[in-house]
Amino acid sequence: MSETPATGEPTARRRGRPPRAESADTRDRILSAAREEFSERGYEKTSVRGIAKAAGVDSALVHHYFGTKEQVFEAAVAVAFAPALNAPEALAAGSLDGVGERLTRFVFGVWDNPTTRRPLLAILRSAVNNETAAAVFRRLVASQLLRRIAAQVDLPDPELRAELAAAQLVGTAMMRYVIKLEPLASADLEQIIARVAPVVQGHLTRP
Amino acid sequence: MSETPATGEPTARRRGRPPRAESADTRDRILSAAREEFSERGYEKTSVRGIAKAAGVDSALVHHYFGTKEQVFEAAVAVAFAPALNAPEALAAGSLDGVGERLTRFVFGVWDNPTTRRPLLAILRSAVNNETAAAVFRRLVASQLLRRIAAQVDLPDPELRAELAAAQLVGTAMMRYVIKLEPLASADLEQIIARVAPVVQGHLTRP
Repeated sequence: MSETPATGEPTARRRGRPPRAESADTRDRILSAAREEFSERGYEKTSVRGIAKAAGVDSALVHHYFGTKEQVFEAAVAVAFAPALNAPEALAAGSLDGVGERLTRFVFGVWDNPTTRRPLLAILRSAVNNETAAAVFRRLVASQLLRRIAAQVDLPDPELRAELAAAQLVGTAMMRYVIKLEPLASADLEQIIARVAPVVQGHLTRP
Repeated sequence: MSETPATGEPTARRRGRPPRAESADTRDRILSAAREEFSERGYEKTSVRGIAKAAGVDSALVHHYFGTKEQVFEAAVAVAFAPALNAPEALAAGSLDGVGERLTRFVFGVWDNPTTRRPLLAILRSAVNNETAAAVFRRLVASQLLRRIAAQVDLPDPELRAELAAAQLVGTAMMRYVIKLEPLASADLEQIIARVAPVVQGHLTRP
């Protein structure tokens, strides 16, 4: 990719700070290139230089907008997780009785769709392989997603409960979509939800 | 590493087929080097040449004993999994009532020990990142370990049940030992077993 030809900007402009009007567009283009690069290569093999090249900008501009590679990764993951980070509010809409099924349906809804699965897979792979990527996963998933689910649980150890529920969900998604264990990989999604939802519910609300 | 100097063998001997007496020792040395290389680098970055170098033998000898890189990996994983592959018989010793707790204690006993955790971690990382390594994981874990647990379950969908139980166990191990989510990573092991064992039991025996 290169700068949009329609704007007719001289290449040299790329090295300076862009004016405000151009900022949001350039930032989005870098973020989009970053998501693509991290999804394609994983955290370790992705470089700021590669992201800059894919976005058609200078590396300095990537650093200007986002900082280090870790910070670009965190920004890209935050975008991929945006729908999930809104989940706790959606889940809170009903009573806590049905939270196991709502959370399970939500998670498998995201994993079962190849488009939304791809960034999750990239994050999971990066987090399993690289301590820096694991730290980003911890910050976003633990502090933002699980803490907010835990906040709705009025029982001892709410955070541990939320993490063990997440362990069943992430473990099942990994066995089904990554390792592709049979019969789990080919099983009907409703059959899996019927078995997993009560477990998630139990973790969160069993006294 | 190099050939044991005490034997005084000429280097040229490495390229031919070794006599029987030497075979078992050389095979073990290659397997041990393979485990070390795969643990250290993961499946993708490990090469047969690197394994041969670490074992102090020619690459042709590695191919002679094990075949392709995938087959060396499978042999190395089989050694790492040997204790786990004996688990189903051990688990079958008691009644099915306590199988959830016995299986959970067994799995966390292996994961909580840094020495036995290391090869598991390497297998998990490789399987998440590489389709060939995932296929090896499927064959060994699914066909050998989970099928044998499922064989003891006299209820509908025994294999799916065993896989969902494994998903809770592997997911929890991943969150605790790889991603290191808190409070799960620092939680007392008995507290985790108390919460996870009934879930594993439920997957396997709940009607």
